[in-house]
Amino acid sequence: MRVPLPRCLLTSLRGQRGGARSLFTLSDSSRSPASVPLTRDTFGLKRGEFAEPTSDDLSTLKQLVKGRMESDEDDLIKHNTDWLRTLRGSSPCVVFPKTTAEVSDVLRYCSERRLAVCPQGANTSLVGGSVPVFDEVIVSTSKMDDVIDIDHDGGTLTCEAGCSLKKLEKKTRKKRLYFPVDLNIREAQIGGVVAADMAGPRTARFGNLHGNVLGVEVVLPDGTVLDSMSTMRKDNTGFDLKQMFVGSEGSLGIITKVAMACPPMPKHINVAMVYTESFDHVLEIMRLAKDQLGEIMSACEFMDNDAVMSVKQKHLTMWGVPDKPYYVLIETAGHCDMHDEEKLKFLFNMLKDKRLIMDGQIGPLNYDDPTFVERLWNINGRILTALSAAGNVYHYDVSLPHAKQYPLVEKLRKDLGDEITKVASFGHLLDGNMHLALLSSSFSASTMAALDRLITEYVTAAGGAVSAELGCGFKSRNLGAHCKDPVEMKMMRDVKNMLDPKGIMNPYKVFPDSV
Amino acid sequence: MRVPLPRCLLTSLRGQRGGARSLFTLSDSSRSPASVPLTRDTFGLKRGEFAEPTSDDLSTLKQLVKGRMESDEDDLIKHNTDWLRTLRGSSPCVVFPKTTAEVSDVLRYCSERRLAVCPQGANTSLVGGSVPVFDEVIVSTSKMDDVIDIDHDGGTLTCEAGCSLKKLEKKTRKKRLYFPVDLNIREAQIGGVVAADMAGPRTARFGNLHGNVLGVEVVLPDGTVLDSMSTMRKDNTGFDLKQMFVGSEGSLGIITKVAMACPPMPKHINVAMVYTESFDHVLEIMRLAKDQLGEIMSACEFMDNDAVMSVKQKHLTMWGVPDKPYYVLIETAGHCDMHDEEKLKFLFNMLKDKRLIMDGQIGPLNYDDPTFVERLWNINGRILTALSAAGNVYHYDVSLPHAKQYPLVEKLRKDLGDEITKVASFGHLLDGNMHLALLSSSFSASTMAALDRLITEYVTAAGGAVSAELGCGFKSRNLGAHCKDPVEMKMMRDVKNMLDPKGIMNPYKVFPDSV
Repeated sequence: MRVPLPRCLLTSLRGQRGGARSLFTLSDSSRSPASVPLTRDTFGLKRGEFAEPTSDDLSTLKQLVKGRMESDEDDLIKHNTDWLRTLRGSSPCVVFPKTTAEVSDVLRYCSERRLAVCPQGANTSLVGGSVPVFDEVIVSTSKMDDVIDIDHDGGTLTCEAGCSLKKLEKKTRKKRLYFPVDLNIREAQIGGVVAADMAGPRTARFGNLHGNVLGVEVVLPDGTVLDSMSTMRKDNTGFDLKQMFVGSEGSLGIITKVAMACPPMPKHINVAMVYTESFDHVLEIMRLAKDQLGEIMSACEFMDNDAVMSVKQKHLTMWGVPDKPYYVLIETAGHCDMHDEEKLKFLFNMLKDKRLIMDGQIGPLNYDDPTFVERLWNINGRILTALSAAGNVYHYDVSLPHAKQYPLVEKLRKDLGDEITKVASFGHLLDGNMHLALLSSSFSASTMAALDRLITEYVTAAGGAVSAELGCGFKSRNLGAHCKDPVEMKMMRDVKNMLDPKGIMNPYKVFPDSV
Repeated sequence: MRVPLPRCLLTSLRGQRGGARSLFTLSDSSRSPASVPLTRDTFGLKRGEFAEPTSDDLSTLKQLVKGRMESDEDDLIKHNTDWLRTLRGSSPCVVFPKTTAEVSDVLRYCSERRLAVCPQGANTSLVGGSVPVFDEVIVSTSKMDDVIDIDHDGGTLTCEAGCSLKKLEKKTRKKRLYFPVDLNIREAQIGGVVAADMAGPRTARFGNLHGNVLGVEVVLPDGTVLDSMSTMRKDNTGFDLKQMFVGSEGSLGIITKVAMACPPMPKHINVAMVYTESFDHVLEIMRLAKDQLGEIMSACEFMDNDAVMSVKQKHLTMWGVPDKPYYVLIETAGHCDMHDEEKLKFLFNMLKDKRLIMDGQIGPLNYDDPTFVERLWNINGRILTALSAAGNVYHYDVSLPHAKQYPLVEKLRKDLGDEITKVASFGHLLDGNMHLALLSSSFSASTMAALDRLITEYVTAAGGAVSAELGCGFKSRNLGAHCKDPVEMKMMRDVKNMLDPKGIMNPYKVFPDSV
């Protein structure tokens, strides 16, 4: 196994800490928030039976949060409009509590008055989970951003809900811990991330939120505070109620604090991008990489030509990205650079011998000083916004058995009419998660309904999941009705009624219109 | 780093698959089931307001499961008595359904008749979670033991609830997948293991059940079947309701099918036992091992002298185990034997240089052919039964911050009177989980209540958890009342009332007597 390393193909990162990160920002979207049509008009929705916020309500709410409220239309626009600039609500105010007690006061008041509430973190949901649909009171966690404790020995982090992933990554890295939620949007706040059960590319290595969240503090819809905080990795004292809030998407309460398990920070990270000719080769590369890299593998991503070229067209800085059918990005994170390099080298020789790859590039990762390879990683995070700049994007985030993944893309390209001009796909191979971005010149509710049906039918028949890592939010709220067991849908409703009998929390989200 | 390997200290396992397993069996207990006093007498409990099973009920139940019922007292005794021979119920029958439909029929009938039900797998609970307290109808999952599917590429297993861990480990290993639940009692059935949210020593590496369970099928108390099965690693379509049943301890329904994520099988496993002089050294060994071994580390266990010597006294086959203050067992599981050996060697040289270890031994692992080192692993699994043979054992399974762990053992040794003759401790260091076994000549309810209070107070003040990996079951049902947030206790009760309004499922368990 000890042969010289082909440095042209493989450049290892030595001594760097920190993972690959995208530089995905709001400025990627070219549409102005004020130009986005109102969601209620676009989707023809009926407002729920909630009280309408009056000027008296606004005064009281402002008092409850010691003046930290915005109610001017210009200030509100970014809170009323979603990240992808496709949805717009008309909330009259956003409040910024600083303490759990203030969140409790706000929710108690809203519950008593039967005012609908939209919890909001950094408002980075890609499924419209964090914007109001009508005139919900927006409760922002942005001012609750203290890191409470980081314990290196125990491998735990405790913080308030408004901490951004960027901040938490930085703070945990200083204590040589790895923050196990890696999303493209680093502004995202941990409270929202936990509420939406977000995942990202590295869950197969570092675990998902149901496994990694150790404790939560939640303000329930009537203002009651549930203290289910713990920093213990094993706590089996009664039901694990915190799990109910992981993935509840703000519909059962507002998460105000979070405790997470964080593994030791890997000492060396390598990233490689290889190019290949077919999706069958993509899968064979993944299999061999899993087998050869084993425990050091931290991500394995694929992107197709339409996905990568869309980003290249928008971002001219992506110099040097070749035009290839399929791109596979492999990341390792380990404790010994020599060992990791040997394993990677062995893998790459094998891939070349088997003629599975056309070419490949590797470079160091360090997001304080972005390099060529880091920009390769960033392609992943820019696909949706790059396509959004070119027109309307219907975005689907599905899980599928590997063999059923690309046939869906090919079926869509074949079956859809001229209205859809491009079908781009990319995904996290290690957990069967594939994103589909379908481009058209403008939005049509009937096209979206037809796509929902077509994709849900395919995914359900294949034993997949129609929402993989982004949650249902507003945009995917109806997908569950097509594929979930009716007993499960009823139980979801029972849980909602138990915790939020007035239905004030994040209405028009998560649940299908018909349930 | 390339220096010759000290083979006397370090012998690697090459080409072996499969992890370390204990040979813990029922025969370890020397007490006969029939001699165990009735739980209702020992604890002076009041029977719940359920119907008493009549001979008509037994006839109907027998029909519903096509004759697969035992009602003879001799046949029932092992179903009425717990694994550790400390509890005994008086159920008049155990039924053995073979299908989900039969489980549904049985629960629907019991619900209509208001008959209490005790779900039972292999009846290996260490907290009395799987034995009746009064005359509950026992519903056994033992005849539902089909492995439905194992998918190497997807890394998933689908099976019926009655499959033993032993069977699942064997079947997944054949497909080069690692079954991520490693308990000492390999007879345990996966349905019961998921219901109890069991953990074991390797969760820090391979994740816990909340992270690894992908789907469940559950029969609810009224006989309704909830199909929440999925083999997708990411499924974010609506609330993650399956989480409610992971750790519900049979009090919300009976799990009939399970889907699990299984990582690739590591190719090489090494185990080392080292001896050291103080608990501070134990912790420093753990820190250095985490730092040097990184991603290949799969377990780090400690045992104290009282724990190991108790096993040695009972099992004379444990030849050669030296008499030392503390024992630390380190396991690695990796994809390249050379690399793993190098990392281990480097660690051991470091531990010797720092004078942290007195001595150590390593050997290959293969449980078809148990060896010396495997028996070292087995000590862990035999401590409770070895102590039980010497008298009555009060057993606690707590999570604590590392620095607070051993001071509790020392405090107990100092503060407790002559009634407690030995305090043995052992634990899974990577997740702060410590087991305490307190030996006395006979059981006393008042001593147990005093210990409950003392240990709960200490653990709660230290920010720990009073039940770490075994659940509450019957024995630890009252611990939560001392340390849980009242809001959380009320929410537990609300969830119970929502799913089991008649309270027939596994009564006298999980919930404190007062709630």
